[in-house]
Amino acid sequence: MIKKVFEIEMKVRDYECDAQGIVNNANYLHYTEVTRHAFMESLGISFKECHESGIDPVVSHADLHYKTSLTGADVFLSSLTVERKGAKLIFHHTIRRKSDGAISCNARIEVVVLMNGKLSRGDFFDEKMKDYLQDYV
Amino acid sequence: MIKKVFEIEMKVRDYECDAQGIVNNANYLHYTEVTRHAFMESLGISFKECHESGIDPVVSHADLHYKTSLTGADVFLSSLTVERKGAKLIFHHTIRRKSDGAISCNARIEVVVLMNGKLSRGDFFDEKMKDYLQDYV
Amino acid sequence: MIKKVFEIEMKVRDYECDAQGIVNNANYLHYTEVTRHAFMESLGISFKECHESGIDPVVSHADLHYKTSLTGADVFLSSLTVERKGAKLIFHHTIRRKSDGAISCNARIEVVVLMNGKLSRGDFFDEKMKDYLQDYV
Amino acid sequence: MIKKVFEIEMKVRDYECDAQGIVNNANYLHYTEVTRHAFMESLGISFKECHESGIDPVVSHADLHYKTSLTGADVFLSSLTVERKGAKLIFHHTIRRKSDGAISCNARIEVVVLMNGKLSRGDFFDEKMKDYLQDYV
Repeated sequence: MIKKVFEIEMKVRDYECDAQGIVNNANYLHYTEVTRHAFMESLGISFKECHESGIDPVVSHADLHYKTSLTGADVFLSSLTVERKGAKLIFHHTIRRKSDGAISCNARIEVVVLMNGKLSRGDFFDEKMKDYLQDYV
Repeated sequence: MIKKVFEIEMKVRDYECDAQGIVNNANYLHYTEVTRHAFMESLGISFKECHESGIDPVVSHADLHYKTSLTGADVFLSSLTVERKGAKLIFHHTIRRKSDGAISCNARIEVVVLMNGKLSRGDFFDEKMKDYLQDYV
Repeated sequence: MIKKVFEIEMKVRDYECDAQGIVNNANYLHYTEVTRHAFMESLGISFKECHESGIDPVVSHADLHYKTSLTGADVFLSSLTVERKGAKLIFHHTIRRKSDGAISCNARIEVVVLMNGKLSRGDFFDEKMKDYLQDYV
Repeated sequence: MIKKVFEIEMKVRDYECDAQGIVNNANYLHYTEVTRHAFMESLGISFKECHESGIDPVVSHADLHYKTSLTGADVFLSSLTVERKGAKLIFHHTIRRKSDGAISCNARIEVVVLMNGKLSRGDFFDEKMKDYLQDYV
């Protein structure tokens, strides 16, 4: 069964480029976060409200492969799929330059969910994400 | 009476430079924040503990004059003086390149203090800052 | 004569909020930069290409008044008008929360244009910006 | 043979914490970059001068394991070792909270060297790094 993909379009902000004239490597982590939070929001989950009610998704592992560098004003497509693995949610991110589809970054981001500071499975996310987690049901 | 000056030494981080090869203008606001928080810490005030006890200093006005641009790996001296003006604390910041003393940025930052989200004079800061506010006693 | 306004819609990224749960003051300078560069792009001027051909607009003075704080996931409208003042371009920025129109930040940003590192009037920008500078013709 | 370790002391800047009150995950990539550049500088290599002479070290792969979160004003020790692997330099980073030595982040960062935009072995770095690369001679 094919996994559902969530995708948004973004654009490089010039201040995200460093003196080499390309997007600084750390900003790709920001791009993946923006995409995950937009994904959660599309499911009716607010990162801010989660935090205020004691639920904090936290990145435990990030693995990023950098390919074609993005540069000032580049438009790109940032997509993700998600899977459940025990207590973790694994997000698979792809960042592609829009003009030619060149892969800029592939990232695998593991997220754990803290409830009031303690590790939790965060099962309530699964019901919301069921269309995206479908191939694991 | 001469006002007491607080000063720290800092160094440009390469990622703070943008594609023009100079420190992006927004980072000077970060530098002033780092300096104010180091100043508060030198007086025994923790920004983090303030927030946790419902006290939030918030910038209400920032006025920055940019002179000589800093660039990658530059070492600089970031200093401040402070005055009380009604409900506000006014910080006067100077950022100078260490190698030659060239002024990089002069900034005037107004800070108001919120207590549990409401405007307060934050008078408890004055006792802590008394050596720096001395010429207004 | 009424000055023409350029406006874009933006959204707070959660990582732009600091431990106080509101957008850190430095990010408003980023927002104004994004808006200026989008404005230039709408006129066919690329910040990146400018830099590559030796033309560097640089902020010489920034004056920001902070009102209602933006917070995680807030949508906001970022607008600007521009005027020519001698060798400087003066941008007047307004950042308003979209939900209720509350002013979040008013900023006045002075930009000077360097050509190969030397101060220039950057007159070539005026022809491009003529619809926005019309009341000064 | 024991590999030589390079280490610097750093301190969390409050603006690096996000609304969760902990250092945002992307900043650890910044911390590792600051450490690599300080390391290079200790060997007489300037990141800025490298770029100006057409030599650009670029991150091709980053793998970060997040453990104990750092928070506002935490002091930490950021260390690295380095090895040569074909055309790549592999940096092994460890970030530990100073107060108790708790590991905050382990990162493995692969760097490739571009010369005038083309992949190069960057062998000239090896001579400079020979004390650190000694166990591979």
